Amino acid sequence: MTFEDAKTRDAADSLAHCRERFRLPPGKIYLDGNSLGAMPASVPDRMAEVIDCEWGDDLIESWNKHDWMGAPERVAGRLAPLVGAEPDELLITDSTSINLFKLLGAALAARPKRSVILSEEGNFPSDLYVAQGMESFVRGSRLQTVPTDAIAASISDETAVVMLTHIDYRGGGRHDMKAINAAAHRAGALTLWDLSHSAGALAIDLDGDGCDLAVGCGYKYLNGGPGAPAFLFVARHLGGELSNPLPGWMGHAAPFAFDPEYRPCEGIGRFRTGTPSILGITALEAGLATFDGVFLTCLEAKSRSLSELFIGETERRCGGQVRLASPREPEARGSHVVFAHPHGYAVMRALIEAGVVGDFREPDLMRFGFAPLYNSHQDVWRAAEAIGRIIASGEWDQPRFHERRRVI
Amino acid sequence: MTFEDAKTRDAADSLAHCRERFRLPPGKIYLDGNSLGAMPASVPDRMAEVIDCEWGDDLIESWNKHDWMGAPERVAGRLAPLVGAEPDELLITDSTSINLFKLLGAALAARPKRSVILSEEGNFPSDLYVAQGMESFVRGSRLQTVPTDAIAASISDETAVVMLTHIDYRGGGRHDMKAINAAAHRAGALTLWDLSHSAGALAIDLDGDGCDLAVGCGYKYLNGGPGAPAFLFVARHLGGELSNPLPGWMGHAAPFAFDPEYRPCEGIGRFRTGTPSILGITALEAGLATFDGVFLTCLEAKSRSLSELFIGETERRCGGQVRLASPREPEARGSHVVFAHPHGYAVMRALIEAGVVGDFREPDLMRFGFAPLYNSHQDVWRAAEAIGRIIASGEWDQPRFHERRRVI
Repeated sequence: MTFEDAKTRDAADSLAHCRERFRLPPGKIYLDGNSLGAMPASVPDRMAEVIDCEWGDDLIESWNKHDWMGAPERVAGRLAPLVGAEPDELLITDSTSINLFKLLGAALAARPKRSVILSEEGNFPSDLYVAQGMESFVRGSRLQTVPTDAIAASISDETAVVMLTHIDYRGGGRHDMKAINAAAHRAGALTLWDLSHSAGALAIDLDGDGCDLAVGCGYKYLNGGPGAPAFLFVARHLGGELSNPLPGWMGHAAPFAFDPEYRPCEGIGRFRTGTPSILGITALEAGLATFDGVFLTCLEAKSRSLSELFIGETERRCGGQVRLASPREPEARGSHVVFAHPHGYAVMRALIEAGVVGDFREPDLMRFGFAPLYNSHQDVWRAAEAIGRIIASGEWDQPRFHERRRVI
Repeated sequence: MTFEDAKTRDAADSLAHCRERFRLPPGKIYLDGNSLGAMPASVPDRMAEVIDCEWGDDLIESWNKHDWMGAPERVAGRLAPLVGAEPDELLITDSTSINLFKLLGAALAARPKRSVILSEEGNFPSDLYVAQGMESFVRGSRLQTVPTDAIAASISDETAVVMLTHIDYRGGGRHDMKAINAAAHRAGALTLWDLSHSAGALAIDLDGDGCDLAVGCGYKYLNGGPGAPAFLFVARHLGGELSNPLPGWMGHAAPFAFDPEYRPCEGIGRFRTGTPSILGITALEAGLATFDGVFLTCLEAKSRSLSELFIGETERRCGGQVRLASPREPEARGSHVVFAHPHGYAVMRALIEAGVVGDFREPDLMRFGFAPLYNSHQDVWRAAEAIGRIIASGEWDQPRFHERRRVI
């Protein structure tokens, strides 16, 4: 494929107009939207409005006047079409890990005769840590981790909840949510999905696939800004049954009655705990607005088109010097692609210096994320060209590229 | 006291220059900084810098380049002098209720032979809800609430932790932290203080008073913006002993090693869970900077001077038509004052329409908070005059003032 071919694909891309919804960093090809999404162009003005007019001028009155109270549900309504859920099944609140704790606790309480949280060995560590924390809280509960291909066979009548990340944060492998939900339900278990690496990039259908519970992060493909509030999903049929193990005043039926006894509100709002972060939720609302009018099928098709181009062009240029560490079949992947290289850290540092921003995961993985709204086929073609050049020239092998930083 | 007297007091006020650090709403006397602090004047520019340059331009690189990773500890360092703690005893993270859950869980685990969380009947409901949630998690644990004057006598060898709010959110009554800490320690119990209604207004001395654990909110007197991140405090002598019941990757000793086993970092950082809210923490950092160069003794003296003036002038003008529902002795109060009136809701609505902003708490309490950095004696004098006028004229008794809103 030539650069002209990439241009032709961009010219035919039905999502090409969405790139203007972002303020992309000049001189960079940003392929790390799976870690921190690019900034929506509307964010500076919208944040200034909330800061100057709502906080500055209207102050406490804004809880009514600008519906700060309703923000966690209102913004959830914008997320609903992106994950195939109804608005009243979703809530914007806290962080992904905190939400995972809430829903794990709720799931264990809903399956009191079962003790096992089933997960996979390579799940995102924070998810495993939350489950490990839960073990020490709920007596008898136990985290069981198994290899990916043993998950379905490991679901038993001891399994309370199957907790998985839809797209593997490292290799980008994708679980078949529908099949695992069905297997879990046959065994009487619940499912809890972490959508952090898929929401905003893939055609997720939480209701259609029969998911019970889910969480996900707001700062990756949803473009909500650094440390954006996260979301949680509780399928409507479970709504009345589950309780929030981290109850707080914002989830009370009447928070301003200041009742000394906790009495949860009806519906998803019971999974609120403390006061919502209005600045964080405002940026996330702008992030979600970048998806206006976008069909999920187009989003996923574009993601696939970008990652296929990337794999093809990178392998063509690098030959055997890199190893594809993501599934080769597009339907088995998410929206990021990982190549292994023995000096992956230094190669990635050199790439970043050359303006191609991906990230690195131990021990040797170079990770590249494709955000269908703002990455173009030309971006991807150029990135593959840069990887080929840097590896072929050996220019990555300089002391400054080997020096470790905290985060890459 | 005449308005000229109030002016004279302002002229002699050593904190008068701090008022310029805020952008106060034009035409209003804002006495609700105990619910949502006024906006620091530096916030719009600082937020624009973080949004445009850090998120927009530098993107993922900002975790290193702009020390986003260190923000929870760095900003805690700014809080330390305001609460009489060392920087490494404090962390900015999550919400007050979530932090309370973390420290309650940690305290119960540190006192495994004791089962009682002792609190007071009128404590802030969210704090009680968190403890009620904990009851269902930690088998045998039990929330015991007693009247305020029975607290010290109720501490026993069954008490794991005494959980109290320093300043009562409703009436403004103040606990003697030092005396309660001493009583708890004599009985072998820990103490956990909620400083939401005192940090940033009073001379708190967590270390000097022998506090074990504390939490507090960032959006009241600390001026951190709506739903700002909260803080938690763990006394250094307990640091190594306590573990975080909500573990997450940001509290791991090596978060980017992606170790499947949780291994907490040394020190207070282990109480981190998920990714910190960078937008929220940025605004809070600006809020804390409004205290630069301010001595806590001056802060508390100013608070007292304002509230004494308010009580005196309001009672002089309203006679028996309002009842002081806060302690009369200044050393027994925090920085807000509550007056009861049978139609307190409508009176408060009328006051807000007249530009004097306080709030209302059921059943009949009008609450007025005094933020020593930006409220003046002239503000307070005018507010008392408005209350006197509105009550004497009966102008509060109009249908629109009786109509209930969600938040006041």
